[in-house]
Amino acid sequence: MKKIAIIMGSDSDLPVLKPAIKTLAELEIPFEVHVMSAHRTPEEAAAFSKNARANGFGAIICAAGMAAHLAGAIAAQTTLPVIGIPVKSSTLDGLDALLSTVQMPAGMPVATVAIDGAQNAALLAAQMLAITDEDLAAKLFDMRKKQHDKVVAKDKSIDIAAILAEK
Amino acid sequence: MKKIAIIMGSDSDLPVLKPAIKTLAELEIPFEVHVMSAHRTPEEAAAFSKNARANGFGAIICAAGMAAHLAGAIAAQTTLPVIGIPVKSSTLDGLDALLSTVQMPAGMPVATVAIDGAQNAALLAAQMLAITDEDLAAKLFDMRKKQHDKVVAKDKSIDIAAILAEK
Amino acid sequence: MKKIAIIMGSDSDLPVLKPAIKTLAELEIPFEVHVMSAHRTPEEAAAFSKNARANGFGAIICAAGMAAHLAGAIAAQTTLPVIGIPVKSSTLDGLDALLSTVQMPAGMPVATVAIDGAQNAALLAAQMLAITDEDLAAKLFDMRKKQHDKVVAKDKSIDIAAILAEK
Amino acid sequence: MKKIAIIMGSDSDLPVLKPAIKTLAELEIPFEVHVMSAHRTPEEAAAFSKNARANGFGAIICAAGMAAHLAGAIAAQTTLPVIGIPVKSSTLDGLDALLSTVQMPAGMPVATVAIDGAQNAALLAAQMLAITDEDLAAKLFDMRKKQHDKVVAKDKSIDIAAILAEK
Amino acid sequence: MKKIAIIMGSDSDLPVLKPAIKTLAELEIPFEVHVMSAHRTPEEAAAFSKNARANGFGAIICAAGMAAHLAGAIAAQTTLPVIGIPVKSSTLDGLDALLSTVQMPAGMPVATVAIDGAQNAALLAAQMLAITDEDLAAKLFDMRKKQHDKVVAKDKSIDIAAILAEK
Amino acid sequence: MKKIAIIMGSDSDLPVLKPAIKTLAELEIPFEVHVMSAHRTPEEAAAFSKNARANGFGAIICAAGMAAHLAGAIAAQTTLPVIGIPVKSSTLDGLDALLSTVQMPAGMPVATVAIDGAQNAALLAAQMLAITDEDLAAKLFDMRKKQHDKVVAKDKSIDIAAILAEK
Amino acid sequence: MKKIAIIMGSDSDLPVLKPAIKTLAELEIPFEVHVMSAHRTPEEAAAFSKNARANGFGAIICAAGMAAHLAGAIAAQTTLPVIGIPVKSSTLDGLDALLSTVQMPAGMPVATVAIDGAQNAALLAAQMLAITDEDLAAKLFDMRKKQHDKVVAKDKSIDIAAILAEK
Amino acid sequence: MKKIAIIMGSDSDLPVLKPAIKTLAELEIPFEVHVMSAHRTPEEAAAFSKNARANGFGAIICAAGMAAHLAGAIAAQTTLPVIGIPVKSSTLDGLDALLSTVQMPAGMPVATVAIDGAQNAALLAAQMLAITDEDLAAKLFDMRKKQHDKVVAKDKSIDIAAILAEK
Repeated sequence: MKKIAIIMGSDSDLPVLKPAIKTLAELEIPFEVHVMSAHRTPEEAAAFSKNARANGFGAIICAAGMAAHLAGAIAAQTTLPVIGIPVKSSTLDGLDALLSTVQMPAGMPVATVAIDGAQNAALLAAQMLAITDEDLAAKLFDMRKKQHDKVVAKDKSIDIAAILAEK
Repeated sequence: MKKIAIIMGSDSDLPVLKPAIKTLAELEIPFEVHVMSAHRTPEEAAAFSKNARANGFGAIICAAGMAAHLAGAIAAQTTLPVIGIPVKSSTLDGLDALLSTVQMPAGMPVATVAIDGAQNAALLAAQMLAITDEDLAAKLFDMRKKQHDKVVAKDKSIDIAAILAEK
Repeated sequence: MKKIAIIMGSDSDLPVLKPAIKTLAELEIPFEVHVMSAHRTPEEAAAFSKNARANGFGAIICAAGMAAHLAGAIAAQTTLPVIGIPVKSSTLDGLDALLSTVQMPAGMPVATVAIDGAQNAALLAAQMLAITDEDLAAKLFDMRKKQHDKVVAKDKSIDIAAILAEK
Repeated sequence: MKKIAIIMGSDSDLPVLKPAIKTLAELEIPFEVHVMSAHRTPEEAAAFSKNARANGFGAIICAAGMAAHLAGAIAAQTTLPVIGIPVKSSTLDGLDALLSTVQMPAGMPVATVAIDGAQNAALLAAQMLAITDEDLAAKLFDMRKKQHDKVVAKDKSIDIAAILAEK
Repeated sequence: MKKIAIIMGSDSDLPVLKPAIKTLAELEIPFEVHVMSAHRTPEEAAAFSKNARANGFGAIICAAGMAAHLAGAIAAQTTLPVIGIPVKSSTLDGLDALLSTVQMPAGMPVATVAIDGAQNAALLAAQMLAITDEDLAAKLFDMRKKQHDKVVAKDKSIDIAAILAEK
Repeated sequence: MKKIAIIMGSDSDLPVLKPAIKTLAELEIPFEVHVMSAHRTPEEAAAFSKNARANGFGAIICAAGMAAHLAGAIAAQTTLPVIGIPVKSSTLDGLDALLSTVQMPAGMPVATVAIDGAQNAALLAAQMLAITDEDLAAKLFDMRKKQHDKVVAKDKSIDIAAILAEK
Repeated sequence: MKKIAIIMGSDSDLPVLKPAIKTLAELEIPFEVHVMSAHRTPEEAAAFSKNARANGFGAIICAAGMAAHLAGAIAAQTTLPVIGIPVKSSTLDGLDALLSTVQMPAGMPVATVAIDGAQNAALLAAQMLAITDEDLAAKLFDMRKKQHDKVVAKDKSIDIAAILAEK
Repeated sequence: MKKIAIIMGSDSDLPVLKPAIKTLAELEIPFEVHVMSAHRTPEEAAAFSKNARANGFGAIICAAGMAAHLAGAIAAQTTLPVIGIPVKSSTLDGLDALLSTVQMPAGMPVATVAIDGAQNAALLAAQMLAITDEDLAAKLFDMRKKQHDKVVAKDKSIDIAAILAEK
């Protein structure tokens, strides 16, 4: 199976990325996690991206905040699909990272997920691999089924009387 | 080869979508184009999405404006990757469609591209198919090469004297 | 009397919804509370909405955050009025949910209230039922009267001397 | 049948409101159209609202731009449901009117529709009347059906060959 | 001397308003503080405003949050200058109140200060009275002088060595 | 009677300012119009402001776009009330000028009106002079009366039949 | 004298950049103009930047729109000051380019000017060279003087009578 | 070596500025720190700026929040490059300060860095001095090298097993 790369622009983004790591592990998809910066280690990032297909990767997830250039810089060096996670930082509530990630010019797509949306980035990567992998597709379908059943269970558990009894 | 579906929420979105259609055709990727609405034809949209994998599709591109729910509604019914194009409408410059498309809750990703970014949506779909299709990957690489060469050519063509001669 | 349905996209929205529940109870309007997701349980949500009029409902209140599609998805399946409460989540201060809820395309209205505005959603539902229910209209009028009197009382209670004595 | 009132803050809002007028006429719902300003004719607006229920109105639609206070001012004087249409003016793309209309404080709801969303305001008013009016509900259902069929027809009419033939 | 009225839309706005109260007291300007709501007590607010000039007021300061209509509603009933303080509430960081206060239509000005800018509202009211009151103008000038001197003193007190010694 | 100063940061702002000029002329308030820039002619602007009270001015209206500093720079040099008009320029729809004008720090108020709200700036200046000028107050009241009567006349002139006859 | 480089991400940005070109020419500062893309020609851009100091450049001006990564990518490869011009494109009014350019992470500054602010970018580059070049500083001072005198001349040319005579 | 001036509009901005102070000290660049306000001490600020070049300064860093005019006011009085740091205050997340700092009109540049981006302001000032100072350029290059090596080290230190072991 192709591997997924998860790259964060700074190790301070790691807490946001944990759901992506856990989701890939749960789906038994092989993956690597890297810290690489579009600005501080541009050569390493470019080299990683340029060789990613040859090295057995199927998609690359990039997380960065502020003027989030990482996903775009990675996308510039590969024809693999690149998934961008805009990370919320101390100002502007993630809007800067969202626009820096999603508003890519024609010719250079970044598949952008919600601000801090690491789990969805992992699921999207899995969906890409599952286009031609029926087993993985089945696992994703099961995961959906569990989400569905959890909501159905919650629907039965709302305790109106308790709410009304609260002062 | 897997097919790509392009779905627009309204036929008024067709002009925005043309670059996606032309790009898929240029890459010789089989595709279908549909008008389906999350709100006006929810059953048709759901049925299409539910059967898309079985019907040979590899990814679904959805374009919609305003409170753009189409990509999310399609994503809810399939484990195929869904690509969302937020379409600019008469107010708010596309910000409403962007946020309605990209800010999907955990468990239900939509791979969002730039506002009106139809060409990138097609390229992203192609990249997904190319994960396991070396021929298509090569075509994408060639396309990149042409983009590159075009910029290099432009770099040589700037006529400073002409600019300075303008009054 | 027609019933009111309150649907939340996730049980994490319950704290925001409590004022709506208490207001309907205070007005003695029959209601049901559900957890249903536009994305995780689309069939259940669609079925509920499609049958809501026949099942004695008069209006449906929907609360959701981020790319809040729930109200629109419910509205697509019924001609009952649907009231949308945009819920603030961890980024963007509720602007994403507001635009995803209010910017509905022509033909498919959602009556949107303020971000986290659950009490107003309940009052709006009550106002709809009260169009043809003079008793309920009288209760709403009394509630307004109490609001009014409370403000008038507050107006008399401002203690300027105490404020000026604060260091 | 209860009447619907349509009030605009300025006669310059009339072009935006025409779809509301035509929709109510098409649904054969009796209605009145007024120009009343929260700021220029506050007494007239308040008097109209205070007497609206007694005068046979079932809901009031208010359209205003900029710091759009009209819907709120009308809502303050009646327990009828009030529907607000934020109108786009020459700056800020309608965001000012949207926030001024939708962000009502607790106790005083305004059912807000999209910026310039006049048709939806009329449909929402009709839905409110249709809670207890099966004939009107049937008309709304038919209208939905036509919308649905129109989308289905459009879905069949996309001419890919023509698009690809365009230079 | 003319009096200044300070009106808040809800007594929850009182903490924000304290600097205005203290500033007017410090300047020995007579003032009244009221709780009046554009929506909950519209008659009281309108009556207060209509009679404000006759009752010896020179300007009216209004503070409100969310869809902040109070200043506009007061302005509609008087030709006295009305000063609006947009109050930050739990969502949107005060942008809703700012736009609802400042974007008044032609013919009906509200002199808007910064979000939560209560002290400036009081100073602005004082400046208005000081147009024809040289004693008050002198007090304002002295206050400015003190501000100036405080900054000059701060300029001398920055301890670089201490900053560099911090780890 | 005190004079009003109208200052624009650039003569390109003149078209926006014309309603202010015409309003002051209509109210027979003496005024001067200047082009002075916070950045290009800071000394002239400061000198004008510092001497404005002694030179018989009662208030100063400042119009500027982009990072609109003019009103703040003028306010820093006088205890006269300063009115700021944020001017819309070619990007950001006037939001930059609005925030640069209204978000003044404590101690230094600018009475801000709507983006491009020149007429309101003139009316606000007139209201300030009218605090102690009953004749001017009466003129402002008459102007309001005319506004009111115009809306009342418009209210009677809406031709529904003509609207419905439009295709 | 050190040279200035002007780099645009796409030749479609050339019209926005002309004032920068003309300003550098007017100041007799040697310069080069290039088309290089952070995404389409990343190697060329990196090589240019890496060698810029050795090649006699003193500062680099970068103009780009949308998710404007060019200035950041150039800044990552040089310790020369990099000036970023956010370019307005067809959606979001340049806000995306502004945030993508200015919100750079710690360690990697980009000196950002206004959206489409090409002339200021050139002046800023000139100011940098003029830190140690008194002749250039004198030219900049003269340019300022001309700006100043032009505003002073405009201040005398406002024709109030003509404005009041307009209908 | 030329000195760098750091000016803050209020001593409350000092915590934000500390990284700038420490960075200049680390680079052994001589500097002064001042508190000067565009509004409270405009003469002192203007005088400082006007004499800055003669007094041996090479660049001026200005930090201010809200309607941040300080950098613009300083820029108006000197042809030295002025660097603006927009400071986040209690509302609007720094957007007001960003737009007030960066959106300078043609002719008067301010080199703007990220909201609260004090370290980058110091680095940018250092880069300006380093245009003609090879020793300083070498120090900046070394600092970059350390940043680079730190990221490379972090890249090797991510402990996936520990993350997966977390519950």
